[in-house]
Amino acid sequence: MRLRHIKNAQEVLHERSDLVVLDPIAHQGKWRDLYPKAKALHLEIGMGKGQFILEMAKRNPDILFLGLEKQASVLKKAIDKVEKKEDNCWFILGDAEELLSMFLPQEVDKLYLNFSDPWPKKRHTKRRLTASHHLEQYTVLLSSQGTIEFKTDNRHLFEFSLRMFTEQGWILDELSLNLHEDKQDNSESLVTTEYEDRFVTKGNIIYYVRIKKWKE
Amino acid sequence: MRLRHIKNAQEVLHERSDLVVLDPIAHQGKWRDLYPKAKALHLEIGMGKGQFILEMAKRNPDILFLGLEKQASVLKKAIDKVEKKEDNCWFILGDAEELLSMFLPQEVDKLYLNFSDPWPKKRHTKRRLTASHHLEQYTVLLSSQGTIEFKTDNRHLFEFSLRMFTEQGWILDELSLNLHEDKQDNSESLVTTEYEDRFVTKGNIIYYVRIKKWKE
Repeated sequence: MRLRHIKNAQEVLHERSDLVVLDPIAHQGKWRDLYPKAKALHLEIGMGKGQFILEMAKRNPDILFLGLEKQASVLKKAIDKVEKKEDNCWFILGDAEELLSMFLPQEVDKLYLNFSDPWPKKRHTKRRLTASHHLEQYTVLLSSQGTIEFKTDNRHLFEFSLRMFTEQGWILDELSLNLHEDKQDNSESLVTTEYEDRFVTKGNIIYYVRIKKWKE
Repeated sequence: MRLRHIKNAQEVLHERSDLVVLDPIAHQGKWRDLYPKAKALHLEIGMGKGQFILEMAKRNPDILFLGLEKQASVLKKAIDKVEKKEDNCWFILGDAEELLSMFLPQEVDKLYLNFSDPWPKKRHTKRRLTASHHLEQYTVLLSSQGTIEFKTDNRHLFEFSLRMFTEQGWILDELSLNLHEDKQDNSESLVTTEYEDRFVTKGNIIYYVRIKKWKE
């Protein structure tokens, strides 16, 4: 244990090549090879400590789950949580700004954005993961029936995001302005993040939306 | 006073032809004649007791304000409130289902929907003033730079409405998921309805959105 703790995050990541993809650009167009029986590919952008994606992978064995995380130190914490590696779940060390180098157009079926950094200052607007240049990238990499699910407890980020979505022609397919109130009779179905659990305990409202570009 | 109270609402409305339009279909295409110096025509659908539209008319003397109300008894209450008739404000007794008989295409510059009946039951969905067939009518009667402002304290109606708006290609131009919190430093600018004042006193959240179909 001692030895492990003094290792830096990068070293740990390199040792877990069964779980972590360190060269995502090399996988462009070939992600499904990691799990050929996958019926769909779902990508979480900013997976944090991994609670959400790990639980989603357990519950949906026919889907390949990829979690993207920019910070090696955060990804290390996610790795520490993995007791048993799921065949259908991989972590990626990488930056959302590089998504179009990592994925071919239409390679992804669903995107998850959970509790993304709100970047509240106006001069940081472009850093928000729902800023327009990000949305344009998502449009490219999503399949024709693709969707995005977005959750946050930050009201102003949520308002900003809904405006951006509609400016680019996204349809709000499902929407809740108080997710945990709506789901309280059905909590079994709700997969949460570490942040989310903490915020809900504090009584914060969680906002949720699923968006798409196609009509039924 | 006694005599007045026993009069029914319809009679009162007929006596106030300086303020109430009882034959809106006859005004189709000619609304601006009521106030030729108007730079724009704004219509509130479901004006209720009139607090909002009367205050808006006072504050904006260059705009013609029309308030539509279906129920004669409610409209009578609004009339009772009018101390001095504003030159730029008229009430209309009529049904939102008939809007396209009352207005020519592009005759209206802005629509207000304030605290519309939520019609919570699924079988009553079509009665909601933001149901798709209503939105199609609004698209017709709004001018090319037209907008709709919508306020409600009913979360499920607001969620439903945002979904409907985006399904029909409306852009969320301004959005607040807690209007009175956002406006607390600037309450002077906020014109409220009777319902709204009551709900805010109770601590309810007011949702607000302004939508449009055109891009800058």
